[in-house]
Amino acid sequence: MAVEQLKIELFKLHQNKLFELMVIGIIVFSALITGAKTYDIGSTMADVVAWMDMFITIFFLIEILIRLASEPRFFEFFSKGWNIFDFIIVTASLLPIEGNDSVLLARLLRIFRVLRLVSVIPELRILISALIKALPRMGYIVLLMFIIFYIYAAIGSFMFEHINPVLWGNISIAMLTLFRVATFEDWTDIMYETMAEFPLSWIFYLSFIFLTAFVFLNMMIGVILDVMQREHEEYYRETGEGEAGEVHWIKEHTEQMEQRLERIEGLLVENVMKK
Amino acid sequence: MAVEQLKIELFKLHQNKLFELMVIGIIVFSALITGAKTYDIGSTMADVVAWMDMFITIFFLIEILIRLASEPRFFEFFSKGWNIFDFIIVTASLLPIEGNDSVLLARLLRIFRVLRLVSVIPELRILISALIKALPRMGYIVLLMFIIFYIYAAIGSFMFEHINPVLWGNISIAMLTLFRVATFEDWTDIMYETMAEFPLSWIFYLSFIFLTAFVFLNMMIGVILDVMQREHEEYYRETGEGEAGEVHWIKEHTEQMEQRLERIEGLLVENVMKK
Amino acid sequence: MAVEQLKIELFKLHQNKLFELMVIGIIVFSALITGAKTYDIGSTMADVVAWMDMFITIFFLIEILIRLASEPRFFEFFSKGWNIFDFIIVTASLLPIEGNDSVLLARLLRIFRVLRLVSVIPELRILISALIKALPRMGYIVLLMFIIFYIYAAIGSFMFEHINPVLWGNISIAMLTLFRVATFEDWTDIMYETMAEFPLSWIFYLSFIFLTAFVFLNMMIGVILDVMQREHEEYYRETGEGEAGEVHWIKEHTEQMEQRLERIEGLLVENVMKK
Amino acid sequence: MAVEQLKIELFKLHQNKLFELMVIGIIVFSALITGAKTYDIGSTMADVVAWMDMFITIFFLIEILIRLASEPRFFEFFSKGWNIFDFIIVTASLLPIEGNDSVLLARLLRIFRVLRLVSVIPELRILISALIKALPRMGYIVLLMFIIFYIYAAIGSFMFEHINPVLWGNISIAMLTLFRVATFEDWTDIMYETMAEFPLSWIFYLSFIFLTAFVFLNMMIGVILDVMQREHEEYYRETGEGEAGEVHWIKEHTEQMEQRLERIEGLLVENVMKK
Repeated sequence: MAVEQLKIELFKLHQNKLFELMVIGIIVFSALITGAKTYDIGSTMADVVAWMDMFITIFFLIEILIRLASEPRFFEFFSKGWNIFDFIIVTASLLPIEGNDSVLLARLLRIFRVLRLVSVIPELRILISALIKALPRMGYIVLLMFIIFYIYAAIGSFMFEHINPVLWGNISIAMLTLFRVATFEDWTDIMYETMAEFPLSWIFYLSFIFLTAFVFLNMMIGVILDVMQREHEEYYRETGEGEAGEVHWIKEHTEQMEQRLERIEGLLVENVMKK
Repeated sequence: MAVEQLKIELFKLHQNKLFELMVIGIIVFSALITGAKTYDIGSTMADVVAWMDMFITIFFLIEILIRLASEPRFFEFFSKGWNIFDFIIVTASLLPIEGNDSVLLARLLRIFRVLRLVSVIPELRILISALIKALPRMGYIVLLMFIIFYIYAAIGSFMFEHINPVLWGNISIAMLTLFRVATFEDWTDIMYETMAEFPLSWIFYLSFIFLTAFVFLNMMIGVILDVMQREHEEYYRETGEGEAGEVHWIKEHTEQMEQRLERIEGLLVENVMKK
Repeated sequence: MAVEQLKIELFKLHQNKLFELMVIGIIVFSALITGAKTYDIGSTMADVVAWMDMFITIFFLIEILIRLASEPRFFEFFSKGWNIFDFIIVTASLLPIEGNDSVLLARLLRIFRVLRLVSVIPELRILISALIKALPRMGYIVLLMFIIFYIYAAIGSFMFEHINPVLWGNISIAMLTLFRVATFEDWTDIMYETMAEFPLSWIFYLSFIFLTAFVFLNMMIGVILDVMQREHEEYYRETGEGEAGEVHWIKEHTEQMEQRLERIEGLLVENVMKK
Repeated sequence: MAVEQLKIELFKLHQNKLFELMVIGIIVFSALITGAKTYDIGSTMADVVAWMDMFITIFFLIEILIRLASEPRFFEFFSKGWNIFDFIIVTASLLPIEGNDSVLLARLLRIFRVLRLVSVIPELRILISALIKALPRMGYIVLLMFIIFYIYAAIGSFMFEHINPVLWGNISIAMLTLFRVATFEDWTDIMYETMAEFPLSWIFYLSFIFLTAFVFLNMMIGVILDVMQREHEEYYRETGEGEAGEVHWIKEHTEQMEQRLERIEGLLVENVMKK
């Protein structure tokens, strides 16, 4: 009973608006601390920063424990994706720090605490969910793009390896070089180099640029259509307003009118029969 | 009474089409003067330009005083955003010029007089209003983009600082470097440099480019949808034409038909009852 | 009468499918000749090319005279934009060639004969018309963009002229430099140079990039919306098909149903009255 | 009869889910082998790779023979575009390898076996079909873009050839240079070079960039509209759901209601007549 009471109190606490703002504040503060560490700061300041870092770690630990404890059943906490996300970020920053390499690793793991902003601010959470939902639509187009890259990289590697092994040495390097071409970064230097031996190799580059631009364009359109359709449907479902809502209203009322007309016709036919 | 009469006269004046055109002309002239000052002109010409500048300043002062005076109540002038905008630009260019530094400052402040074109031409005013309305929709996406930049900048600063402190010295410099990568400006030079020590660092750059491109894409879509929806709603509200208008017309008339059908059924049932 | 007869014959000729194809062929041939002139060709070939050029010029002259002559009234020919377009291109290439400079000018004028492809192929004509119709929508946004460029160029010219007069010497040069920044072409080199003296000048560049990207985005959306709306309306007007067509159908038939219902109610009320 | 039986068995085999997965697996394996060949591998490994290559070639040959044999009539196999596509890819990799040049050619032809992924995975097949359907819409815009490139290349070649024959030597080279300008790749270097002699040549570059960007934009919009319309129509045809589906439903039911109303009016009029 006392445990139940405590659970409710803890739940109230972490639902509290002030507590939420404090969590956001600590996350932002944690981000600033992370940023501060990249500057050359005196050893005194470094000590202060280290202490603050420890405080933030402990605060996040307590916060997640409160949320864990306030859950009616223990494992329900892990049924929500965002809770797992928070849990991983917090526990990752708890890893013991030993040796020089670990310091770097611990630092890197602590950077990701900034990502907790996303799980705390609802608007960002919605944004990320929308992006994730748009992923499957993009999956096959990314695969298609990968196939294009792979074929061009293989051709490039076979043909141009002897010209410049740094750019075309093997298929992985060639794919990186092609990505560079796709971003238009000094791509003409690469082209002029191979055109010295193969004067027609501009066909290779131009066809590649056209294909990737075209597929990328399609990917963009796919995402745009996907997001539009989803937003439109949600709007329609939630409000019942707008053109789609009105059309739905008309459909339902047309059905009612039809039934009424059927009854009227029935009455009339009956009437005529009687006479 | 005379004051009232004067107010009306002044109002008529600044609403006058010719006066408006003159204001636009003076603004364009002011822009040309600003441009002329960037050229190496003889001292005689410089004197002429200085005199013209003074004339423009005085003209703008008089114009804003006329608009202020023509207002029924004094403070109502400041209730409109564009009036405050004009007032700040005009008064800023009135600041006294002393010393060498102030000359530069005065010059800079006078450049912004070109912005008055925006407040004078209604089409530009509408355009700016539309852009401002689209801002909140973008706010959270800019925040998300900032978080991505911050995390990548922190990682980059920790990992690559010893390789090139000019590019990765601290988190601010690293963010600027990442912005450069996002614009594809010589980004492969930066990547090849770090790949010499960390051969897998291409993952860092490619994932960053994909993430920012993806989020930016979403931002674009967000703005497009926002503007489309708003324009569509306005068009619908104002004209009642188009498909949405027709659907609305059908909805209303379906309601009327339903009522009429109810009356008809009532009459018929009554009729049947009677017999 | 004979003149009338000739007019009709000429009209038939230039409407003839084969004649049209021949015109297209000659235009393409003219384009190839123009291209051939850019290669180092022997003097014999150059003579051949010169003779062919003359032949094309005469052919175009005859063709336009046929079209002029076939017009019922002389000045009606000039009432269509595309006719004026053709006339200017053809007469421009008739200018006498004298001196060295004129040769270059004559050559340049003859290049534009390729543009006649646009006036001859209907699909291209439609495309160009659509682009021209979209222009006014873009006008004010181009003006807004120009204002942004002008202000930033003036600031840049005042602040950075002493750092690099080649890039920031006066407002025209500064605008060209800013256009270069807007295309991301080695923009960081320009920024690093000014940041050496003004460490905060990155604000200048980043705000400029954001503003221009944002305004350009809006321009793009404006054009997209404009073209979409126009195409949609045309489709609706021409075919009466699609959702919009069906909605229109429903609207008209709802009106008929209402009238019928009114009549029915009238009959019923009358009926009831009688009893 | 036995042949018929065999045909059915073979058809069952190549429709088998497991067989399909195996084909996909072999294609991916073939891609990996292709990739492996671009690395410096020992001669033992090279032998293994060569054996595997032969195995893949034979497997693909058997697979296509199975599909050919399972077809009821022989030539029906070639009535589907994707079958022809597969057949060409498989037979091309069967070409005998002799001499050094042929090795390279054989290698290149084998790379295209990766493309069989597209014909095997239905989602990719749909994607490619959609892209191909969007091509005609783009044809005329590509032609328009080509005309713009051609005219600018001719002008550039006439004017700037003596400045830099490497960039403006003839019309083909000039078009490649202009494509470079259109991708913003070091375009200012090219411009500054010609501006040294022709100070106004920035007009040439800026107008070219604006024109190509504008036409490209239109091409993008064209494709977007095309894909949207097609997807919308298909969705409407297949599901009958959504707003368009509801409108169609309303249209049909409005027709039925009209007929019923006609009958009702008929009955009433008859009724009135009787009395």
